[in-house]
Amino acid sequence: MSAGPALAILCGGGALTLEAARQAKANGREVFLVGLVGSASPEIEAFDHIWVKIGELARFTGALRQRGVEEVAMLGAVTRPEFADVRPDWGAVKHIGEIARLFRSGDDGLLRGVARILEREGLRIVGVGDFAPQLVAPVGRIAGGAPDDDARADIAFGAALLGALSPYDVGQGAVVARKRVLAVEAAEGTDAMLARVAELRASRRLRFKGRAGVFIKAAKRGQDLRLDLPAIGVATLEAAARAELKGVAVAAGQTLIANRAAFAAAAQAAGLFVVGFAPSTSET
Amino acid sequence: MSAGPALAILCGGGALTLEAARQAKANGREVFLVGLVGSASPEIEAFDHIWVKIGELARFTGALRQRGVEEVAMLGAVTRPEFADVRPDWGAVKHIGEIARLFRSGDDGLLRGVARILEREGLRIVGVGDFAPQLVAPVGRIAGGAPDDDARADIAFGAALLGALSPYDVGQGAVVARKRVLAVEAAEGTDAMLARVAELRASRRLRFKGRAGVFIKAAKRGQDLRLDLPAIGVATLEAAARAELKGVAVAAGQTLIANRAAFAAAAQAAGLFVVGFAPSTSET
Repeated sequence: MSAGPALAILCGGGALTLEAARQAKANGREVFLVGLVGSASPEIEAFDHIWVKIGELARFTGALRQRGVEEVAMLGAVTRPEFADVRPDWGAVKHIGEIARLFRSGDDGLLRGVARILEREGLRIVGVGDFAPQLVAPVGRIAGGAPDDDARADIAFGAALLGALSPYDVGQGAVVARKRVLAVEAAEGTDAMLARVAELRASRRLRFKGRAGVFIKAAKRGQDLRLDLPAIGVATLEAAARAELKGVAVAAGQTLIANRAAFAAAAQAAGLFVVGFAPSTSET
Repeated sequence: MSAGPALAILCGGGALTLEAARQAKANGREVFLVGLVGSASPEIEAFDHIWVKIGELARFTGALRQRGVEEVAMLGAVTRPEFADVRPDWGAVKHIGEIARLFRSGDDGLLRGVARILEREGLRIVGVGDFAPQLVAPVGRIAGGAPDDDARADIAFGAALLGALSPYDVGQGAVVARKRVLAVEAAEGTDAMLARVAELRASRRLRFKGRAGVFIKAAKRGQDLRLDLPAIGVATLEAAARAELKGVAVAAGQTLIANRAAFAAAAQAAGLFVVGFAPSTSET
């Protein structure tokens, strides 16, 4: 029944985590979901699962060992606790110095550090592309029409901007219109950034006639593509339409797209193009 | 009565424009204010002044010629119209090709282009540092206490981040806490960016115990320092306090500080440090 070794998914929030689990199953993998308390959806309980808190490393590795699972994917958004609130179990205690250091680094460093600790525990970290490639954005047209010249110039400009931001563990998203940077995404997340552009336009503080600009999204350069990739979905498209953008451009191979059929229909309905661009450099 | 040639100030919005005019007068300059309709404060009418709309170049240069004014400063925030809404007078018509091009560039390019056109009309562009140096941030402590080690590291990180953003005509401000980039400023402006950080903290989406992070502000690298410099004032400090930051760091020589006495008192009251850092590179 299984076309590969059993797979554990360490689940943060978001529907994509569940979709990846379903897709992995459809691709013949046996899946075991580990929900992070406070982040993962209760829907993980439809699968073989346990719940863990951050710091419960022995509980996590023990459950995997019991099931003979050696491959782990990490997916979904995690609400980052303060280090002082973490209660390490005996499995985590031996890594506590490193965990404390990780808590002082960016999200990227934190994820990489967790992956390193899991690998030291004998686990293999895999990415969505490895077990559910259907969810990863390809190069070229993904949904809607083709970008016009202005939009293509904005995509190139925005992709370069995100590249420049990469070393600072920030900048998975930006909105560019006619080579003006309208917004850069940091801790607020994509939806809040797009809502901000929508407000600036509605209040006429940003004045463009009709549709203008592109939302550009990429993984950070040098990011470990097995780890949590940026994702877009129908909500992203709705937010982009409210911001009166022409379309969305995502880094191919580095962006996850949830629920592709509904996504394509929503792009069409919203009059948005969605394209995948080839990231100019890959230093992974 | 005058300690220098008469000076025209092309006025956008903001109290600093008026303070610069008062300071120039106190420094012995005769001043003539040119208010941009829709942007400048009615308070400019306390000075010798006229009002102009964007595109009324002949009206502007004519009024200066009449008064024998050859030096112009450009100050304050301007609401950027759509090019199609600009009504060029006969003075602007001969530059219309360039003006159209400028409207497709970033704010920086637009300002530089306007300066270039005014210079071609025989005017000399000057900066605030030239006629009111009291308003420009110095290196070192400006108000409040001294930054701690964490804050100093965040200042260095944030200054480097803003440097990387410079080529994209964006990024005069960012909030960094323990080397995490919490927010990057683009079209929304400083106040909205700081309000966003305050909301993220209040909603516990960003969890730090107590004061954390620094607001870092700089001019864009390569920016013409005679043109509109970033400015901070009491409102900035109030916003930084609501965001529970430790302090504010501004690029020395590149940032204007309105109303210094009230500013220092407000920093003290809010428990915020304010320091000027020496920009690492100057390619001006």
